[in-house]
Amino acid sequence: MNRVPFIEMKNEFKRVLLKYDFSEERAELCARLFTETSCDGVYSHGLNRFPLFVKYLQKGYVRGNEKPVLISKIGSMERWDGKFGTGNLNAHFCMERAIHLAHQHGMGCSVLRNTNHWMRAGTYGWQAAEAGCIGICWTNTMPNTPPWGSKEKKVGNNPLVMAVPRAEGHIVLDFAMSQFSYGQLESYSTKGEVLPVAGGFDQEGNITRDPSAILASERPLPIGYWKGSSLSLMLDLIAMMLSGGQGTYEIGSNGSETGISQVFIAFDLKKLPDWHLLNLKIEEIVADLHTAIPDEKGEGVRYPGERTLRVRAENLERGIPVDPTLWNQVLTM
Amino acid sequence: MNRVPFIEMKNEFKRVLLKYDFSEERAELCARLFTETSCDGVYSHGLNRFPLFVKYLQKGYVRGNEKPVLISKIGSMERWDGKFGTGNLNAHFCMERAIHLAHQHGMGCSVLRNTNHWMRAGTYGWQAAEAGCIGICWTNTMPNTPPWGSKEKKVGNNPLVMAVPRAEGHIVLDFAMSQFSYGQLESYSTKGEVLPVAGGFDQEGNITRDPSAILASERPLPIGYWKGSSLSLMLDLIAMMLSGGQGTYEIGSNGSETGISQVFIAFDLKKLPDWHLLNLKIEEIVADLHTAIPDEKGEGVRYPGERTLRVRAENLERGIPVDPTLWNQVLTM
Repeated sequence: MNRVPFIEMKNEFKRVLLKYDFSEERAELCARLFTETSCDGVYSHGLNRFPLFVKYLQKGYVRGNEKPVLISKIGSMERWDGKFGTGNLNAHFCMERAIHLAHQHGMGCSVLRNTNHWMRAGTYGWQAAEAGCIGICWTNTMPNTPPWGSKEKKVGNNPLVMAVPRAEGHIVLDFAMSQFSYGQLESYSTKGEVLPVAGGFDQEGNITRDPSAILASERPLPIGYWKGSSLSLMLDLIAMMLSGGQGTYEIGSNGSETGISQVFIAFDLKKLPDWHLLNLKIEEIVADLHTAIPDEKGEGVRYPGERTLRVRAENLERGIPVDPTLWNQVLTM
Repeated sequence: MNRVPFIEMKNEFKRVLLKYDFSEERAELCARLFTETSCDGVYSHGLNRFPLFVKYLQKGYVRGNEKPVLISKIGSMERWDGKFGTGNLNAHFCMERAIHLAHQHGMGCSVLRNTNHWMRAGTYGWQAAEAGCIGICWTNTMPNTPPWGSKEKKVGNNPLVMAVPRAEGHIVLDFAMSQFSYGQLESYSTKGEVLPVAGGFDQEGNITRDPSAILASERPLPIGYWKGSSLSLMLDLIAMMLSGGQGTYEIGSNGSETGISQVFIAFDLKKLPDWHLLNLKIEEIVADLHTAIPDEKGEGVRYPGERTLRVRAENLERGIPVDPTLWNQVLTM
């Protein structure tokens, strides 16, 4: 495993993007978002995803040059059409709009249809928190998980993000509605390990910790069984209705995940008169969690995003870990 | 198990409430909300909870006569102080405010501090959907669940509600962040049954389906393990910050759950130009779910709220099932 400095990775991504009809400014932002994702330790959606993203540009699934178009504005809510443009640029733009609306109205919501995979979901939570806002956002996906009671993939894993700004390091939760992603199942399977907790069904319909059996059945478990199955459906319904875009049942019928729907909500905390007091209370909550008696494994409690800050600091200092083959592939793109 | 007509149950509740400083109008609404909860099959938070609610009125934990007071208004967001009043009346009032704000601004949010247990969470989802709005609301609670990595109860089970209006019957999800409630664990334990899926830890720290072992360790599992643990924390943080009220870490230090914080969000779908088209798309999604290949148990997929409609219809026709001892207790109150 080699390490590549942040600026070098970003510049390589940018160089490639400029070949695909991106303006200078948009190539810079798109490259930065991909690099930050790897820098924060979410390698699956940073460098490791970049070649597939470029393939989607080549195939025209992602139209690099398209920008969101405003469809309608209703008070503190805006509807945008993503025009099948670049997923992370569209999502970044729409969270920026939600933040802007929150600055005006206390809270704001921007919804996006006909967009593409936003890569790391947490990116837009960090973005809201950096702007001093509570951020909530989610996306639908193609059907990749059987709902509770069925063995047929009918709901998405619909990642959900919640972010709270904090002076000492934002608190950012980014999670999908399946207990494990297909990528994680493959990783456990390759290593010959069992999952730490139940992750899906085998082909006979038994709940199992065997990652290979789940990959074979294509029946990953939703978090909380029937609960996550229902939560996934609600996120899809709300994203579809607010945006007027596609629901999960319509996505992926052409074999690729494109034309998805997303929701971005921001609350401007600086508008609250007790903003400074609230900052102190967050520190009390974090301190309370850190004093929780650890379980038998002895690890104790981390808040969401806590590990990210440590990984980010290390990767900024030492360079971002890369698979040499993959990195060479990008260098020759 | 006897059955009592809806109107009779409501009138008995109202008769009791009028002894505790409730106005005619507020007693009527509070009694109706309790009765609707039992009528919809959520017996734990309807009749079965009513005696404890009255005890809280007697002890002064719940101040029957107090109404919410507006603290501040910021654009499409309002902050209310619940004055330790009646939980279901406070919550009903604040969802009504969110709906009103959504009618004005497309979306609206009202936040509530210093309130009490709202009884059935789903009540306020049904309320939003009845008004033609998407509703999202949640509450924090006292610490009742160990966060992932700890054996000490530090987070709440913080029920979350999402509701989508639908002509053929609203879609309403109401779920807590623990896989099973303490009430459910007790019910399985009394019947000598094991849980259908893992529900917590035993006292040695092993994940188990034995409800008695979980009741002994007081270590119920959050949904999705580390994921629900983090989601619970985020809901608490956001409710505390937006309302300026208490976080879970502050609630219950006097031994009772009071002075909690809640968030109510509504989106007015009738403001969207394609409202009628969206209604058709919901039917397509429901139809798609209903055609999903059933799993080995053969039950197939239900949308959240689907069973509620059937139970409601039956209980309205045949009367609401009651435990005779409990019902006699209410009659003599």
